[in-house]
Formats: sequence, structure tokens, C-alpha cells
Amino acid sequence: MPKIVDHDQRREEIALSVMKAVAKFGLERVKLEHVAQEAKCTTGLLMHFYPNKKAMLNAAMEIVVTALGERYEAAVNEPDLVEGLSSVLPLDTERKREWKVWLSYWGGAPFKPQDRSRTHAFYNKNHVWIRNLLELAVERGEISAGIDIDAAADHLVGLTDGIGIRATLDPSAWPAEAQIEYIESYVKLLK
Amino acid sequence: MPKIVDHDQRREEIALSVMKAVAKFGLERVKLEHVAQEAKCTTGLLMHFYPNKKAMLNAAMEIVVTALGERYEAAVNEPDLVEGLSSVLPLDTERKREWKVWLSYWGGAPFKPQDRSRTHAFYNKNHVWIRNLLELAVERGEISAGIDIDAAADHLVGLTDGIGIRATLDPSAWPAEAQIEYIESYVKLLK
Repeated sequence: MPKIVDHDQRREEIALSVMKAVAKFGLERVKLEHVAQEAKCTTGLLMHFYPNKKAMLNAAMEIVVTALGERYEAAVNEPDLVEGLSSVLPLDTERKREWKVWLSYWGGAPFKPQDRSRTHAFYNKNHVWIRNLLELAVERGEISAGIDIDAAADHLVGLTDGIGIRATLDPSAWPAEAQIEYIESYVKLLK
Repeated sequence: MPKIVDHDQRREEIALSVMKAVAKFGLERVKLEHVAQEAKCTTGLLMHFYPNKKAMLNAAMEIVVTALGERYEAAVNEPDLVEGLSSVLPLDTERKREWKVWLSYWGGAPFKPQDRSRTHAFYNKNHVWIRNLLELAVERGEISAGIDIDAAADHLVGLTDGIGIRATLDPSAWPAEAQIEYIESYVKLLK
């Protein structure tokens, strides 16, 4: 009897393996063999799901962007602004992996004009996600109603990238608590 | 009569050519031939100055870090905090090039443990440079004496990286004036 395989589920598992391999070796250096090793399959099977390396790397980036969106959307239910904003930082293994994929993507993006519109759209979304969290915090009286909410959202987009980079490149200097305190010290300026 | 060549000057010119080639193609993709084309010399001559690709790329990063340090040091004489802080942003061709080298470096750094201590030392310096500018601004009465100066310096390290990345990846959305306004809107919170 043939084995029943859920094609979509396998596809998703492989995309996750791509992400793990990219987080280990970087976008430019990762090889099909690395992904196959993570996915415990042959490179032939990989090609069946993703016809080329580019398609695989795009799948990895999609996982990262989707995870980020889900974290910000979940943060809407978080009663504390700092907790919500910090939920996307490289606080644990999974999120550290996502940040490595980010940095790796950024490393190549300025040299690929086709990545620009994707980046533009992403940052616009990022602004809106953070803006929503700030609006909720104003409603709760957690931060001042008098702040320039768009400026603050833009600051937080930059601060998140800034601290995410430092914590990824210099993890021993930035344990999870230090990253959260970093966001907290900015939020204090909005009170 | 043999041509008199200033070896150090030639070395510096070649390092600048490395930087230009890296800014065009990215650290991972740049080839000896690209550098030779920029430097208008043979790949053989290149190898005479830098024995391997790694040595060349290190020279490019050194140029970027040196330029950054010089900009922050010059900013000490700048009577306006926002101008001083903004002087390292990707405001023109030269600085855009430096940021592309940065991003390219970051793309590979999480995968090279030997880059970590270099990154750590760099960010500590960066903190001190910005802290100095903030102290001068407090003395001038440009910002409040009551601010947490270390927290603000850390915010500005992150904001600089954050806006530098966005402006490099999405240059049409972030012309020079918009980048400066970004820093200005944060500085307002320190008044």
C-alpha cells in the first residue's frame, strides 16, 4: 500500500528546514545538501517541492515574514505595550533563527533591485502593526495621548531592527531581559 | 627609469576600489575581477597588495569603520545635535556605499564567530561616540539634563542602524531630508 503523504504539510516542513539551514549557513552559502540534511530527505525530493534554490530561499523569507506578522497580531491581545513590542525580538532559539535569516536577506537585498518593493511593502506593514499597538496603549492610558504616534511607530521600527541586529551579532551582550529593557526605556519617553 | 610608485597610497586606492566593488556586488559575490576593474589594474597586482579575498574585504570594512569614526569625531564640532547624529546616515553616494558594505557585512557576520568580538568592540565605540554628542548637547542646553544619557545613546545607536537600513534598502522612500527628520523627531523626545 502506498504511503499517504500530505503534500502541503511536507512542503511546510521543508520550508522550515530551509529556514534552519539558512540560519546556520547564511543565504549566500547555504547548499541544497544542508537543507536535505535538515529535512532528512534527498536533494531530489527537495527539488520536487522547490524547483530551485531561489524558490527555497523565498519560502524561508516567507516563513520569517509570516511569523513576524503573527507575533504582532498576537501582541494586540497583550495588555502590556513593552511585552507586545518585544515579542518579535530575538529572545529565544526560534526568534534568533528568524533574525539570522533577516540579516542574511538584508546582506543581499541592496544588490537585488527586485527585493526593493518587497522591502518597501514589508516596512509599511511593520509600521502599521506597531502603530496599532501604540493606539491600544494610548487607549489604555499606558502612554500619553499627546505623542506623535506615526513618529513613535517609525522610531520603534528602527529600534526593533537596531536591537535585533545587535542581539543577533553580539548575543552574549544582549540576553532577552536586556532587549526588553531597551524597548522599555524608549517607551518611558512616551509616557 | 623605473616608475616611482607610492606603495601606501596605491594600497589605499585599492582598498577604496574594494569598497566600491563590494558596494556594487555585495561581500559574498564580489570577485577579484570586479576590484581590478575599479582599480584599473590587473588581478595580479591586486594580489601583491592584498594576498587574498579575505584580506581585501577586511580592508573594505576598515575603510567603512574609519570613515564612521571620523564622521562622529567631526560631529563633535557641529553645534547642532541632529546634524551631528545624522552625519553618518546614507545621505549621499559615498555614505550610501558605506552602508551597503555594512549591510553586506552584517549578512555574513552571524555565521562567522570571529566577527563577533569585532562587532562587539564596534558597537561599544559607537555608543561612546553618540554619548559624547549627547553630553555636548546637554551642556549647550539643547536637550534636557534630566535624560538617561546611556539609554538615549543606545536608542540612537539602534535608530541609526534602523534608519540606515531602511534608507539603503528603500532609498526612494527615504531621501536625505526624511532621514534627518527621523533623527530630529527622536531628539524632540529628549528636550
